[in-house]
Amino acid sequence: MAAHLSAEEQPQPGVSARTRLRRLPEKAVTDRAALDAILDAGRVAHVGIAGPVVLPMAYARDGDRILLHGSTGSRLVRTLARGEPACVTVTLVDGLVLARSAFESSMNYRCAMMFGTLSTLEGEEKPAGLRALTEHLLPGRWPLLRPPLARELAATLVLALPLTEWSVKVSDGPPDDPAADLDWPVWAGVIPIVESLGDPIPAADTGT
Amino acid sequence: MAAHLSAEEQPQPGVSARTRLRRLPEKAVTDRAALDAILDAGRVAHVGIAGPVVLPMAYARDGDRILLHGSTGSRLVRTLARGEPACVTVTLVDGLVLARSAFESSMNYRCAMMFGTLSTLEGEEKPAGLRALTEHLLPGRWPLLRPPLARELAATLVLALPLTEWSVKVSDGPPDDPAADLDWPVWAGVIPIVESLGDPIPAADTGT
Repeated sequence: MAAHLSAEEQPQPGVSARTRLRRLPEKAVTDRAALDAILDAGRVAHVGIAGPVVLPMAYARDGDRILLHGSTGSRLVRTLARGEPACVTVTLVDGLVLARSAFESSMNYRCAMMFGTLSTLEGEEKPAGLRALTEHLLPGRWPLLRPPLARELAATLVLALPLTEWSVKVSDGPPDDPAADLDWPVWAGVIPIVESLGDPIPAADTGT
Repeated sequence: MAAHLSAEEQPQPGVSARTRLRRLPEKAVTDRAALDAILDAGRVAHVGIAGPVVLPMAYARDGDRILLHGSTGSRLVRTLARGEPACVTVTLVDGLVLARSAFESSMNYRCAMMFGTLSTLEGEEKPAGLRALTEHLLPGRWPLLRPPLARELAATLVLALPLTEWSVKVSDGPPDDPAADLDWPVWAGVIPIVESLGDPIPAADTGT
């Protein structure tokens, strides 16, 4: 997994005053490849707007931007489309870290946080964005699907957030108990959390 | 899984103007047992504060409140402790819904969203809160651990959000393709997303 780099040691275009990690800066990862790897591995982002309100949304990375989409009837989507400030966070939880004390017990995770304002994709960019969103969750499926109808496109907004202001935090590895705790008589280590796909459940209305 | 109830049909103490679902209200679930079931099944909440900023945090339900905790050195934790408005969202992603069109393709999920301001636990409530947080993630482990030190307690804030203003949204079941799409020649159905625990990895520094 990614090395832990100090943001101070590795200033970089994605890092601003807002995204420089003050808390546990040794967990900061500032290379863009680490950001892309998290975004490409996740399925759901948590999107925050003023309120505050936080809602889950499907997303896809499309090069140097994140795509979101939703109904024109959604308040959140309309708020994002107006260009109001947003924070988009993608978290992958990798394991439970069992230390000898509650204080050192924790979770291993990879978290990407992105800030900015979103713009609305228009014209040919819109179906291309929907294709990217579909292909991220279901690789190879877009060409097999019934193509979008004009009214479906009209009812959907596709939004893009440029990857210009972001931070990545990674916690991995074993528990970090102080020496004085190492003989405490309890098992210590990591229990991985694994996400997998189950057996497909065909729709009852499957035709051909 | 939970039935889909309209918020309008089932007004209830947890439902306010802010939490009544306007978008896809048929996915709203307003019984408290559904909220508790989601909170008890999840491990990580996404916590939003003004900024907006959204960060993942471990949490536990403790009766009629949600507990969070963190370092006194964390800006987010200090902001929450000041009683600034927060949104705490817990999402469980249950499956990929493969419809015949991109428009009807989606994910099955259970999402709980809670609003309010947090208060700081003091005195005996503080270690009790840490115990609840530990036991939620690692049932049965608290009594086995080296007990908290005074300086560890001093470095930690434990915060509580009452479950007074919340909403639950559940999307489950098969794709909902219109009749005109049922003969489109592509597989349709649900692919479950399953989270499981992997083989424990003992810490290299395990003593006894």
